Amino acid sequence: MTAAFEAQRAALADVVAIPVTPFAADGTVDQDTHRTLLRRLLDGGIGILTPNGNTGEFYALTPQERRLVTELTLDEVGARAAVLVGVGHDVPTAIASARHARDHGAQMVMVHQPVHPYVSQGGWVDYHRAIAEAVPDLGVVPYIRNAQLLGARLAELADDCPNVIGVKYAVPDAARFAAFARDAGLERFVWVAGLAEPYAPSYFSAGATGFTSGLVNVAPSVSLNMIEALRSGDYPGAMKVWEQIRRFEELRAANGSANNVTIVKEALASLGLCRRDVRPPSKALPESERAEVAAIAAGWSI
Amino acid sequence: MTAAFEAQRAALADVVAIPVTPFAADGTVDQDTHRTLLRRLLDGGIGILTPNGNTGEFYALTPQERRLVTELTLDEVGARAAVLVGVGHDVPTAIASARHARDHGAQMVMVHQPVHPYVSQGGWVDYHRAIAEAVPDLGVVPYIRNAQLLGARLAELADDCPNVIGVKYAVPDAARFAAFARDAGLERFVWVAGLAEPYAPSYFSAGATGFTSGLVNVAPSVSLNMIEALRSGDYPGAMKVWEQIRRFEELRAANGSANNVTIVKEALASLGLCRRDVRPPSKALPESERAEVAAIAAGWSI
Repeated sequence: MTAAFEAQRAALADVVAIPVTPFAADGTVDQDTHRTLLRRLLDGGIGILTPNGNTGEFYALTPQERRLVTELTLDEVGARAAVLVGVGHDVPTAIASARHARDHGAQMVMVHQPVHPYVSQGGWVDYHRAIAEAVPDLGVVPYIRNAQLLGARLAELADDCPNVIGVKYAVPDAARFAAFARDAGLERFVWVAGLAEPYAPSYFSAGATGFTSGLVNVAPSVSLNMIEALRSGDYPGAMKVWEQIRRFEELRAANGSANNVTIVKEALASLGLCRRDVRPPSKALPESERAEVAAIAAGWSI
Repeated sequence: MTAAFEAQRAALADVVAIPVTPFAADGTVDQDTHRTLLRRLLDGGIGILTPNGNTGEFYALTPQERRLVTELTLDEVGARAAVLVGVGHDVPTAIASARHARDHGAQMVMVHQPVHPYVSQGGWVDYHRAIAEAVPDLGVVPYIRNAQLLGARLAELADDCPNVIGVKYAVPDAARFAAFARDAGLERFVWVAGLAEPYAPSYFSAGATGFTSGLVNVAPSVSLNMIEALRSGDYPGAMKVWEQIRRFEELRAANGSANNVTIVKEALASLGLCRRDVRPPSKALPESERAEVAAIAAGWSI
């Protein structure tokens, strides 16, 4: 394994922030606010960020906007943190996005779960192999939401593609995660808990060393408090943070995660950090539900 | 309601064929074979087709290929049948695709289920309204796979957009379909059973008047036999066809529909009609499983 991949593995074992994409009143990406929010994460101690993740409303961005968000993030972050760029869609589009990210200085790409409705086990390997082989110098992190995928398939992929160095696993079942990680190779990959703070303690108990977060946009210190506790094996301490974020994350998860990003942007809006606007098929929170989110965000900011 | 929308409503109450997209040995879209397969459907009596549907591997096509498939289909079909073009992805991309389809002569678009993971009820309306308002002269058919969506939301959408004339509903629960259709307005929309022949009888029993089909690529007469029986209220006759297609559709549905298109293309390959190649994340059928599919297809061709 090259030194570069060692550094990337180390970077993944952390709070992986998924920044929001703030919109201006005219509906376009608000680039100045985007940079301000990114600086706030970096100043808050965040060491790795994923532009074009789901919290960034990846599937509501046009191809041009996806490139803009990649370039803007890499430019703003510079050498201050690692950047793991989300790529997806059809294979040629994903490859072009990965090369674009590399050409602008990214070290790693996260491959979104294929949206294609007909995914076979072997086809899953083929899809990721085609992308990973096209950017052999980049670390590649598959995002797995499919509980049926076998760990052996990930091992098969990494046999062909040594740049597959980590996994964002996002099935709401820590026992399933434990089995998948062992079948694929627990030490071979960095395991990132892909369901954020609510599942981070149970995933860490089974071998994860990093977790993704959307909440981190609102309160970087809260997410960092949790990972510090988990790193030192202090599960009661981690669960104190869990209790602190529970209601917020329950609001995000309600109704099939209908308001997942909506709630994060509402909290940011309540702190005066960006507009609450999200794009369809998400929708801004109704007036009557805003005060509760603001109260939670205010509580974290004290 | 305009006469054009009346004609489109009538066209939807039929076997809605979702053509496969055949690939050449070099992996590109095989245009000559594609035209031959489309002519075979038209010669077989099919009256409405959906290019860029899931059986056409929509999510594995590049933006350029999606436009190619739309243009090729509209050109080949001409006035012989109605064409309902699949559109999706982010809103600006979906609108551009719908306008492109209209400019090449399409009468209707089917809006794929949003792939965005965070869909709110109001955001679902916003997403479809933005697309439908951009092409007021086209009939618009939402493709609904979300069992949680309320029928009242579809009614709300159609209040704003009278061009929303039909629905492809695809939840594997005929009682849920019956409730949704009545909550939205049973007479107000044409109801197309979106889970093909296996669910067509149960959906027709609850008010559907059309069904989509991938199997039709292999054997148009089989699908037409089923709809003729259903139209005449001959449910035992329809269930005879159901028994005839059961094993084929079970192979397509197995393992989370991993081989949904794979099996259709395997059957076409066995008949010498196109290559078996599918794109990742699907994968061609292993050698050992091909004979069974060929035997089924041969049985239908007698």
